Amino acid sequence: MRRIALTIAYDGTAYSGWQAQANAVTVEGTLREAIRRLCGEEVVTIGASRTDAGVHALGNVVAFDTESPIPGGNWRPALNSFLPQDIRVMRSWEAEDDFHPRFNAHSKRYEYRIATDEVISPIRCRYVCGVRETLDLEAMAEGAKAFVGTHDYSAFCSAGAQTESKVRTVTRCEVYREGPEIVIGVEGDGFLYNMIRILAGTLIDMGRGAKAPESMSTILGSLDRAKAGPTAPPQGLMLVRIRYGEDER
Amino acid sequence: MRRIALTIAYDGTAYSGWQAQANAVTVEGTLREAIRRLCGEEVVTIGASRTDAGVHALGNVVAFDTESPIPGGNWRPALNSFLPQDIRVMRSWEAEDDFHPRFNAHSKRYEYRIATDEVISPIRCRYVCGVRETLDLEAMAEGAKAFVGTHDYSAFCSAGAQTESKVRTVTRCEVYREGPEIVIGVEGDGFLYNMIRILAGTLIDMGRGAKAPESMSTILGSLDRAKAGPTAPPQGLMLVRIRYGEDER
Repeated sequence: MRRIALTIAYDGTAYSGWQAQANAVTVEGTLREAIRRLCGEEVVTIGASRTDAGVHALGNVVAFDTESPIPGGNWRPALNSFLPQDIRVMRSWEAEDDFHPRFNAHSKRYEYRIATDEVISPIRCRYVCGVRETLDLEAMAEGAKAFVGTHDYSAFCSAGAQTESKVRTVTRCEVYREGPEIVIGVEGDGFLYNMIRILAGTLIDMGRGAKAPESMSTILGSLDRAKAGPTAPPQGLMLVRIRYGEDER
Repeated sequence: MRRIALTIAYDGTAYSGWQAQANAVTVEGTLREAIRRLCGEEVVTIGASRTDAGVHALGNVVAFDTESPIPGGNWRPALNSFLPQDIRVMRSWEAEDDFHPRFNAHSKRYEYRIATDEVISPIRCRYVCGVRETLDLEAMAEGAKAFVGTHDYSAFCSAGAQTESKVRTVTRCEVYREGPEIVIGVEGDGFLYNMIRILAGTLIDMGRGAKAPESMSTILGSLDRAKAGPTAPPQGLMLVRIRYGEDER
């Protein structure tokens, strides 16, 4: 048995999220089917990030064990020939036997994109959240700054999450303009269920003037989901990359 | 009767091109249906550019006559509420009675995008043509330069075109890199059927070394479609904008 790892990119629009489900088309399910068609094995896949329906990824990471002799680097072109165009294996390699895409991850970077144009370009509409109101970028940036640190992020976690500890470390949280879009860039060691979409909804509220940027610390301290803003829609969210230690890559 | 003009943007992936057809979903057909649902009229639409299936637009222009009292600027939000997200009215206004989107156009700009990455990102795959080989950008730029001018462009026109004169004026033709993509930017007073896709196929041949850049003049002079390169696939092509004289806007 060997452990194969993949960096995988996808446009999440057409999928019911990452995680395989019996009666829905998901990214993981589509990937497993491609692996089955390639080498005849029903593998167990472990994804680093179980992205929600409609969320995109440039660099999710997945691993699985196989008896197939296909060399590590060859999985990329081989799987791409069985995958639809909106899912691509960007890199493939033979990993250490104990490599775990989620537990071994040092940090993850997500970006949430907001379009404030009066009319959203059809070329961008799959990858942005449209907000009609004018947003105060400075207020959003100030709120974002207070999000950085090691905190119990319970206020930014949707009900139903199974995780025991809600403590995470966020190393970067920045708000900046990129062309006609406002980008919220977040990096950390891991994120709770819907954490970045709730952060985006809260920062949008701050940009609209509905919440003061100074309230970020109070919201964090409350540990109360009701104090944060709404969960922003999925299509604005992109998993950009996951970093591992030298030895694992 | 008043003449309403629209600037319209669309992701052409899901459509059988611009022009309305009896048994296919087209951009023009979808727009006419939105107009019918908005004001109950079956209008005749005149589009500036009849883009092919799979070709995109940021700024096509269309005009129609209507008895509806809806003010010019209000057509934009009203129609957008009846249109799918992959078609957007970016601007609407009341035009002169004799405004004709195609005949009055001074110039059009198209861009053709080529991705040379080993694996094409799923976020970009709808808008680029993938070329696996390394392309010589300088050779392509040299070939492009010779495409500029007033010529009979018969060698760059697909059979079956109905136009009588094949003489057009191309004012700009440039090849440049934009991030991981190679862009062919072309401007002119009008273009023949498939002209830019055949130009792209020919410049790709020059980038691959299959054709010498100096042969552009010979190909143009031959008036022979067989001398030019293949017709590049539609998804790389984008109608960027159409310019009119001051008075028409």
